[in-house]
Amino acid sequence: MPVGTLASVKSLTTDQLKNLNTQHPAPSTQPSAPGTQHPALSTQHPALSTQHSAPTTQHSALESGPEIILNNTYHLMLRPGIDLLEQLGGVHRFMNWDRAVLSDSGGFQVFSLASIRKVREEGVEFRSHIDGSAHFLSPERSIEIQSRMGVDIAMAFDECPPYGLGHAEVGKSMEMTHRWAERSLRARRAGGPALFGIVQGGVYHDLRARSVEAITAMPFDGFAIGGVAVGESKDEMLDIMRFTAPLLPADKPRYLMGVGTPDDLLDGVEAGIDMFDCVMPTRNARNGSLFTSLGKVAIKNAKYAADQRPLDPNCSCVTCRTVSRAYLRHLYVNDEIAAMVYNTIHNVSFYLDLMRGIRQAIASNSFGSFRDAFRARMAGGVSDAA
Amino acid sequence: MPVGTLASVKSLTTDQLKNLNTQHPAPSTQPSAPGTQHPALSTQHPALSTQHSAPTTQHSALESGPEIILNNTYHLMLRPGIDLLEQLGGVHRFMNWDRAVLSDSGGFQVFSLASIRKVREEGVEFRSHIDGSAHFLSPERSIEIQSRMGVDIAMAFDECPPYGLGHAEVGKSMEMTHRWAERSLRARRAGGPALFGIVQGGVYHDLRARSVEAITAMPFDGFAIGGVAVGESKDEMLDIMRFTAPLLPADKPRYLMGVGTPDDLLDGVEAGIDMFDCVMPTRNARNGSLFTSLGKVAIKNAKYAADQRPLDPNCSCVTCRTVSRAYLRHLYVNDEIAAMVYNTIHNVSFYLDLMRGIRQAIASNSFGSFRDAFRARMAGGVSDAA
Repeated sequence: MPVGTLASVKSLTTDQLKNLNTQHPAPSTQPSAPGTQHPALSTQHPALSTQHSAPTTQHSALESGPEIILNNTYHLMLRPGIDLLEQLGGVHRFMNWDRAVLSDSGGFQVFSLASIRKVREEGVEFRSHIDGSAHFLSPERSIEIQSRMGVDIAMAFDECPPYGLGHAEVGKSMEMTHRWAERSLRARRAGGPALFGIVQGGVYHDLRARSVEAITAMPFDGFAIGGVAVGESKDEMLDIMRFTAPLLPADKPRYLMGVGTPDDLLDGVEAGIDMFDCVMPTRNARNGSLFTSLGKVAIKNAKYAADQRPLDPNCSCVTCRTVSRAYLRHLYVNDEIAAMVYNTIHNVSFYLDLMRGIRQAIASNSFGSFRDAFRARMAGGVSDAA
Repeated sequence: MPVGTLASVKSLTTDQLKNLNTQHPAPSTQPSAPGTQHPALSTQHPALSTQHSAPTTQHSALESGPEIILNNTYHLMLRPGIDLLEQLGGVHRFMNWDRAVLSDSGGFQVFSLASIRKVREEGVEFRSHIDGSAHFLSPERSIEIQSRMGVDIAMAFDECPPYGLGHAEVGKSMEMTHRWAERSLRARRAGGPALFGIVQGGVYHDLRARSVEAITAMPFDGFAIGGVAVGESKDEMLDIMRFTAPLLPADKPRYLMGVGTPDDLLDGVEAGIDMFDCVMPTRNARNGSLFTSLGKVAIKNAKYAADQRPLDPNCSCVTCRTVSRAYLRHLYVNDEIAAMVYNTIHNVSFYLDLMRGIRQAIASNSFGSFRDAFRARMAGGVSDAA
């Protein structure tokens, strides 16, 4: 079932945001220390377009909801279509969402979802995975679409090569991504969204370094590490992230695309990352895999059948304040829609709380002890959660 | 996908409720005029057990939520099981629901869902539609289960014959239902839930009259018309309802099981019905069939693709206050979970608003004009809604 997921994101300091042209409320001011300032999760990579959690985020089930969400260019250009979206006043009005919106460029989905595609220097011809209709994306077309959607932050159009390609192939793809980045920048129009460049280069340090050099030489408003979470191992992802993040300029937002677990967020922040997006909290929620301060909970497990405790005793979200693990398990094993709603509220709250905690720790110069305490609790608590 | 639906119900006057042993808050006081006082809709007949809309009802998406919901005995005895439910403190604590709960007797589901069943005077042996496990329900067992679930109102165990049976067969079944009603009453224990009797008799006036006579002679706390909405035509349902309802004592709650459309509710109230339950608002919501004051809206229709109006301009629910028809259509055609959430909030709100309007009209002696205006708007507005 192709469902959308709650998107969120954001990690910009107010100073950083001043340099962006966002028309929508900026995330709250945060000290800028070893990275991240704002919660950061969204629907970057998966085949998902809209915001199924909108009812909750907009109606205070997520009391401290995300300050920015992500929209998928690929999905929205297919349905409902950009002409219609523009006619309806853009994505903010369409969703009745008055905070910030970031859009991806469509590149990732074209390479992961489209049924047939033909990549040339000019751009990518592809067929919709929905109805086989023919479409075309290029740097110019992607920036046009993102601008017409009315987002606050647009992403440059990049090629996202699959994991497993050799150095030469990845290098060749990366060089095209650099040329596409230049074209993306030239396609900007005054008054349009802020524009972030994307660093590629696969798992190869030398390519990553070259890509950082090329992309950061261009006048983007922020920089993203793309081409991770595409099939490589966790160690490879962390290696690339730790190698690349410190190379990015610290005075502009640094965004790690498609990552990750709570642990990954801590690692990312430590490496200097400001923003993340990931389907993990929402997709896992729908699959009954729940994050808690005491470890992960697979709610379908029979051991929760009579467990009257809240899902996470250290969480104050609507789910944890309202129902027991026993009830959550009952809803889940009976395929109740309420299971997905409750689970999504919790997992997203957990991620937002984590990022909030990280920001506070950074502000009080205690990131290291926050990180260690969080990890010790997560690790030691597994049996406790169970 | 076996999903639960929001249950609700209630139509008792305070005077009526004083005679019931509900431990949970009584619905608000209402004048008792040509019937109904409280909203009345729930999951009586379908293969549904729990409350997927609980997150919304409990978190004010339904600002004026239902005052009573329905739990299905058949489903809950299979999953999570009555021993566990009792161990967990009963259904109120399980769901964290502090208003009233009515349970059906399990009879309807046994006859409509169980894969194999053997009906004897003693009771019904059946196999679970989930895993084929063997179970047994009888008047005594049903009342025991409902009592252990901790509901406020329990229903007598009845046989619900399918539509199309002849007079003799329906009469024979009805006589057993009467004997089961007596056994249900004898199975009550002090401090247990209030208990309603169920009138059967199919589409045959003489049988309905005989059933009313038999059932109302027993000391039940309320009386239900069962055996409708089982396949008969709308005209037959209305005929039976209009024939039977006036025969029921007006000083106790009169409950029409498994009905119906907004029009049916108006007809029911006019005939003297106080309570209804039906999956229509929630099931239709999940299927994109939405009730509005201007007629029904099939939200998938292409004509709503660019429709920026709220779903129902006369509705103040969260859905109508928050998003447009265009967005609701987009969510629906993309199979977003948010579509089901938004649609359910609206349809349930619509039903609750209707019943609230009816109660107010009764209180001001203007039911007739309320009914006529409502119907005129629904009929005349179809093209408007479209």
